[in-house]
Amino acid sequence: MRSSPSDHERRAGVDPRVARTHNDVLAAAIAVLIDDGWDAVTQPNVARAAGYAKGTVYAHWPERIDLLRDAFARYGEMPHHVRTGDLRADLVGELTSFRTAFVENRLDRALAILAERSSAVPEMVEIRDAFVEDGERPIRELLGTISADAKLEAAALMLCGLVLDAVLLHGTPPDDAVIEAAVDQVLRGLGHALH
Amino acid sequence: MRSSPSDHERRAGVDPRVARTHNDVLAAAIAVLIDDGWDAVTQPNVARAAGYAKGTVYAHWPERIDLLRDAFARYGEMPHHVRTGDLRADLVGELTSFRTAFVENRLDRALAILAERSSAVPEMVEIRDAFVEDGERPIRELLGTISADAKLEAAALMLCGLVLDAVLLHGTPPDDAVIEAAVDQVLRGLGHALH
Repeated sequence: MRSSPSDHERRAGVDPRVARTHNDVLAAAIAVLIDDGWDAVTQPNVARAAGYAKGTVYAHWPERIDLLRDAFARYGEMPHHVRTGDLRADLVGELTSFRTAFVENRLDRALAILAERSSAVPEMVEIRDAFVEDGERPIRELLGTISADAKLEAAALMLCGLVLDAVLLHGTPPDDAVIEAAVDQVLRGLGHALH
Repeated sequence: MRSSPSDHERRAGVDPRVARTHNDVLAAAIAVLIDDGWDAVTQPNVARAAGYAKGTVYAHWPERIDLLRDAFARYGEMPHHVRTGDLRADLVGELTSFRTAFVENRLDRALAILAERSSAVPEMVEIRDAFVEDGERPIRELLGTISADAKLEAAALMLCGLVLDAVLLHGTPPDDAVIEAAVDQVLRGLGHALH
């Protein structure tokens, strides 16, 4: 993945004012994306939303795609479930966090835009892949303790897909009973003994 | 659901030339949607793509949303798996048809656009719901023979979500081994004996 200026600067431990500007601009970029869609995420629009001069935004992100990439990287830093060591509880907890992200962080809009743009703009594929890999990692790690290969892939796609299908295609997040039923089916399906 | 002029006309058994015009225009509307996105689906653009005068398209569909509704209804008439009576084979067959629709009919684009637009345009929710209900019906009927309530909901969302997540968020349809592993996990998870 190509490094953008902000990646360099974050690693180098830059001036706190520069870091704050970055935070403000990336938060504004996500807000503009969620509220007004992909086409609205331009340097002038984001600068206006963040309350900075557009020259500031252009200086850090001369290319719009880099602004999008950094904004999605920041957006991906969402809270995950804190593990307890109980596989069932941890899978249910992680799917519940995933559901919360849809409802509170409008992850439905972000993923729908990523999916739609990735099928039209090749540069978006890399951004989508990084974002999805980060988001699905905890589920895949948990399932990886009891499965591998096609079984692991099936289980991970089903549990993440459950939330995705409910929110994106039905407009309703899955309730607790559905999440628990799904986790139980997958665990039993993988031959894992349930208490 | 509000009836559009074309619904009335189809029911009334209209002139074959009118029916052909309808077919051509709706096919063109879907092609424009898939190729150029939501905003491009206007009466003049669709008329041009279908090779008709724009007055013809406006006469049948004065409102753009009705053109979209009829186009999605037509698009939803995709081939499904022909049932064999063997539950495992029928679930695998139905998911394989679903995967084919993604690859051959660009269902990924259509669903991503539906998902993205439904979160921004309230009129699209009804179109999305009708389209998704039609698409998921066979899977829900098959699973309904061995489950109900939250268990059925979880199983249906997981199997449909598996294909959706793979195509929309990973850009790769699930292979046969993954589809079969998923069906086996769900059937075993629901306590259905596998041969």
